[in-house]
Amino acid sequence: MLRVGLLGAGRIAGVHATAISSHPCSMLFAVSDINVPAAEKLAAQYGAQLRTTDQILDDDAVDAVLIATSTDTHSDLIERATAAGKAVLCEKPVDLSLARARACQKAAAATGRPVMIGFNRRFDPNFAALKTSADKGEIGKSELLSITSFDPAPPPVAYVKVSGGLFRDMMIHDFDMANFIMGEVPLAVMAAGSSIVDPEIGAAGDVDTAVVTLTYSDGRIAVIKNSRRAVYGYDQRVELLGSEGLLQAQNMLENTVVKSTTVGVTGAKPTYFFLERYMPAYAAEWASFVEAINDGKVPPVTLDDGVAALAMAEAATISARTSAAVKLDSV
Amino acid sequence: MLRVGLLGAGRIAGVHATAISSHPCSMLFAVSDINVPAAEKLAAQYGAQLRTTDQILDDDAVDAVLIATSTDTHSDLIERATAAGKAVLCEKPVDLSLARARACQKAAAATGRPVMIGFNRRFDPNFAALKTSADKGEIGKSELLSITSFDPAPPPVAYVKVSGGLFRDMMIHDFDMANFIMGEVPLAVMAAGSSIVDPEIGAAGDVDTAVVTLTYSDGRIAVIKNSRRAVYGYDQRVELLGSEGLLQAQNMLENTVVKSTTVGVTGAKPTYFFLERYMPAYAAEWASFVEAINDGKVPPVTLDDGVAALAMAEAATISARTSAAVKLDSV
Amino acid sequence: MLRVGLLGAGRIAGVHATAISSHPCSMLFAVSDINVPAAEKLAAQYGAQLRTTDQILDDDAVDAVLIATSTDTHSDLIERATAAGKAVLCEKPVDLSLARARACQKAAAATGRPVMIGFNRRFDPNFAALKTSADKGEIGKSELLSITSFDPAPPPVAYVKVSGGLFRDMMIHDFDMANFIMGEVPLAVMAAGSSIVDPEIGAAGDVDTAVVTLTYSDGRIAVIKNSRRAVYGYDQRVELLGSEGLLQAQNMLENTVVKSTTVGVTGAKPTYFFLERYMPAYAAEWASFVEAINDGKVPPVTLDDGVAALAMAEAATISARTSAAVKLDSV
Amino acid sequence: MLRVGLLGAGRIAGVHATAISSHPCSMLFAVSDINVPAAEKLAAQYGAQLRTTDQILDDDAVDAVLIATSTDTHSDLIERATAAGKAVLCEKPVDLSLARARACQKAAAATGRPVMIGFNRRFDPNFAALKTSADKGEIGKSELLSITSFDPAPPPVAYVKVSGGLFRDMMIHDFDMANFIMGEVPLAVMAAGSSIVDPEIGAAGDVDTAVVTLTYSDGRIAVIKNSRRAVYGYDQRVELLGSEGLLQAQNMLENTVVKSTTVGVTGAKPTYFFLERYMPAYAAEWASFVEAINDGKVPPVTLDDGVAALAMAEAATISARTSAAVKLDSV
Repeated sequence: MLRVGLLGAGRIAGVHATAISSHPCSMLFAVSDINVPAAEKLAAQYGAQLRTTDQILDDDAVDAVLIATSTDTHSDLIERATAAGKAVLCEKPVDLSLARARACQKAAAATGRPVMIGFNRRFDPNFAALKTSADKGEIGKSELLSITSFDPAPPPVAYVKVSGGLFRDMMIHDFDMANFIMGEVPLAVMAAGSSIVDPEIGAAGDVDTAVVTLTYSDGRIAVIKNSRRAVYGYDQRVELLGSEGLLQAQNMLENTVVKSTTVGVTGAKPTYFFLERYMPAYAAEWASFVEAINDGKVPPVTLDDGVAALAMAEAATISARTSAAVKLDSV
Repeated sequence: MLRVGLLGAGRIAGVHATAISSHPCSMLFAVSDINVPAAEKLAAQYGAQLRTTDQILDDDAVDAVLIATSTDTHSDLIERATAAGKAVLCEKPVDLSLARARACQKAAAATGRPVMIGFNRRFDPNFAALKTSADKGEIGKSELLSITSFDPAPPPVAYVKVSGGLFRDMMIHDFDMANFIMGEVPLAVMAAGSSIVDPEIGAAGDVDTAVVTLTYSDGRIAVIKNSRRAVYGYDQRVELLGSEGLLQAQNMLENTVVKSTTVGVTGAKPTYFFLERYMPAYAAEWASFVEAINDGKVPPVTLDDGVAALAMAEAATISARTSAAVKLDSV
Repeated sequence: MLRVGLLGAGRIAGVHATAISSHPCSMLFAVSDINVPAAEKLAAQYGAQLRTTDQILDDDAVDAVLIATSTDTHSDLIERATAAGKAVLCEKPVDLSLARARACQKAAAATGRPVMIGFNRRFDPNFAALKTSADKGEIGKSELLSITSFDPAPPPVAYVKVSGGLFRDMMIHDFDMANFIMGEVPLAVMAAGSSIVDPEIGAAGDVDTAVVTLTYSDGRIAVIKNSRRAVYGYDQRVELLGSEGLLQAQNMLENTVVKSTTVGVTGAKPTYFFLERYMPAYAAEWASFVEAINDGKVPPVTLDDGVAALAMAEAATISARTSAAVKLDSV
Repeated sequence: MLRVGLLGAGRIAGVHATAISSHPCSMLFAVSDINVPAAEKLAAQYGAQLRTTDQILDDDAVDAVLIATSTDTHSDLIERATAAGKAVLCEKPVDLSLARARACQKAAAATGRPVMIGFNRRFDPNFAALKTSADKGEIGKSELLSITSFDPAPPPVAYVKVSGGLFRDMMIHDFDMANFIMGEVPLAVMAAGSSIVDPEIGAAGDVDTAVVTLTYSDGRIAVIKNSRRAVYGYDQRVELLGSEGLLQAQNMLENTVVKSTTVGVTGAKPTYFFLERYMPAYAAEWASFVEAINDGKVPPVTLDDGVAALAMAEAATISARTSAAVKLDSV
């Protein structure tokens, strides 16, 4: 039974608490948060102890920690937790600074402790099925990948200002998805972005709409489309063209009801946002972490994966400014 | 906090145990089963007590019982539990004998205790959304209902022999769905059935493929199609034609991946069977029971509903033999 | 080059004129109609001669006639045309009277001339593809057939009064579709009908909504649903369950555009009515007639097929009145 | 009645001959081709005269010419035909050389005769419906356009060598589609291409897989994906994200039959190639040309549109080589 310390007690921490508790081989042992009442409430709900982060990291009874705190604390906590001998599952991104993330990568590697980064979408049943099908060769050799990833509504501009920008905050998920599907990082990144959804996002120095092209050493190409706004819901699709066919992972809909009237044939919208869409993915993500820890295997998404996605975000940020391709090995 | 005694520890009891435990206003208090080791295991998993059925019914600490035992015990247990003052949620059907079910209906009514029958499909998000849309008048006045309900594979013939027959065992769900959507019971039932999937089912005196037409006092018509075998998975669809449109609740699929090859464009199969398809429905069913009990309201599916569906099964059984319509008030 | 005389110059005659003219092996030779200006206009458009029906039937230069006149003239014209040695393609139905149709069947058979009945739906690319797949055994042995056939809007009551009733006028297409897919006529017919779309249709002694169940000697079952009104367009679907799968021929839509908004995901409506939906079918129907004539083969839909469908309509009409199954060999 | 001279008698000329003949306001007057037997055969089939190109251009009886000859003759023939006072519909592209196309544009403009370029996809019912919906504001303000355009199979390498390359030969259709949907030309073009489908295409100096990003003055972005091979058929989709929704024009399928088996739920493939997919578009294209000529209006796709698409192909060709954005006003 894996005893887990949960660092953070916000909304996503609650999702992880459910996953930890309902897994037959793990238990929620303790919760910490700088917002103590939030931590207290979450701990109570799941029968866990209220602790400080220091207490959790110092307690030998804790086997693993799940880091669900704010982004700026991730690399510090990864370093401290691995140094304390814990297995770690940390929410993405590792850090907004690529240099800092790389330092963390080095420090954590030195401890030899397993660190998994929470790229939850790899565990979505649909994307996972697409990956499995591609790996089985069901569409031959892969050639051209397309990722469509639109949020239902833009975040507050205050958030945008501290987010690191669309490429680090939002598209980083899609960079990891590309790495997951293609099985390697690209050679170069070419980006175009604009602020067309909300001019205030542009005024804050960020983009809200972007297209990024990734090119690979073997000639494969990937393209990622992001928008901060899709009023019909969370639009999350992946499409892979191969030498023997096409795979498409389509949206999940709120229900299967279709209404035909004089207006047309209308089905339900996509599930609204990431908590609805990726709820099964969070459970599967946790299960794969537990399995890796119990079996002494490398977790399926590593700190290296987190750094790779961040490097791509860095390259895309530069490319969007220079209107030219940026080689990944140059960042 | 509703304290619940669970009678039965089989597969469906396990599903109910999860729903009871994860609901914020109910707790699994005790479990009983003639298979004591099964009850013991289930009780342990959810931190409940192992008891006999008598102990559960006699314990004033138990507010409600969930009856998930074999069909032949349902009406007895409903009578005993209501007599003991418990609120009851009982798996369908009430009984295989219409007379026995009616006696139970009378006895339970005399106690004044709430009894809900577990027609879980009413709580499926898709069928519920269809019903909501129809009730809002989104397709005008309803006229013609079609229910397609195919199991993935026929049960063992040994089960068929004690099942009460396809109309009582399988189509009873669809009779209740028709009552749910149409909002009333039909005037008459007209059935055709045959044993074409498995001749042994025919040899056992039952059918495995059937079409039943229901006619209503206001001219509306419903048709139900059943087959014991759909090799592609559990096929559960409802379609309602109204004066201003059509509503269709389609199948839920295993995932959203679509593969295009030289063979065609292939998507996933429907979710395999009732546990996968109706998992969200079981949780919603339990939530509605808890809400009804807590608010002192009549549960959304009553013992009367259970008896009505059974009467329709009785009428269909006769009609399939006589090849003529059977009036519901004649059974 | 087959020289064709077209009897009738109404809307459906125009459709046939296009098919005849654009086929490389046939030409529109002459047109007749009691509405002479209509015939004159149609003849001019396609470079054909304006004639009387007598002139067409008496002219040895005419190889084949296409009968697209009103239903009450069909059996007379089939008899006269075959007696005159013409090959005949006649619009459905053969006659509203089963006795008259059978007499016509006998008389035409005596001439040895080929007669094809215009059950155009057999030539719809979708239904034809379903039939081909079923015949190849792609879903194993067929077990349960469902036909959904809804018109977009009810005809004028004046038409209903002379139409022979829904079973002879509208469902006759579906009876033929069942015969086409199942490959044989059923043993018995069981019908339920009501007038719920338009009470005036009921006042005229007809139904506008109906469900008919067909049972076959080998245990197979078919069910046909008809409504005179589907406000979203012409709803024409066929679904066949077999021992190894399910085949569904779905509606054709006006276009492939899908719009996702806050309201939902909306696609186009089905093509509005039979001319749009079955335009490719009329061309394929004519091509199969020409091929049969040129090769000296029996046409793919015969006068026997026309009489069989009419007998099923007769049986359904009786069954809807008596609420009991009617054996097909009793009508 | 517009009298039309058809220059060219190849496969696409045959498609145009049908459109010309079946339009009520135009007739096929004469056909020419350097392959005289081909021209003779086509002329005979449609009752037109066999002529030389000179004869057609010199004949005052000819109102319009349709140029369906090889690409290298297009600009010469446009110049000669407009100089001879003919209205012109010319197959795309205007020329492989941008300079030559611009000279032609100037020369033709000087004559004042209408010239339409055959970007047939604008007349596809699906893309046209998407455009109409967007123009009506049904998805608000447009923001991000995606065009997927895959051919079923690569052309022979011999063809590739003289084709002008993927951007001028294949993606030119998609450049025009972007101009059609977005209503203006982009500011800059950024391309990535590789030869992954067939190394011989790469050896011939061309790419077979490409992604091009277009950026617009108002911040809108478009992305075009091309592949020379989609084994499942001609993949032609357009998707437009707007401030109030998403529009998708999906593929047309060979039929609507869906087969559910243990393997999954399989529908038909997309229609195989452009003749099947765009047959209705060719007829609509011709009708719009006839309407423009008869009404004295500017045709819906002009020589300017042809030159604009060619300039984008030029820019993309450069960008794919330099891995940097190319401004459209620099080519």
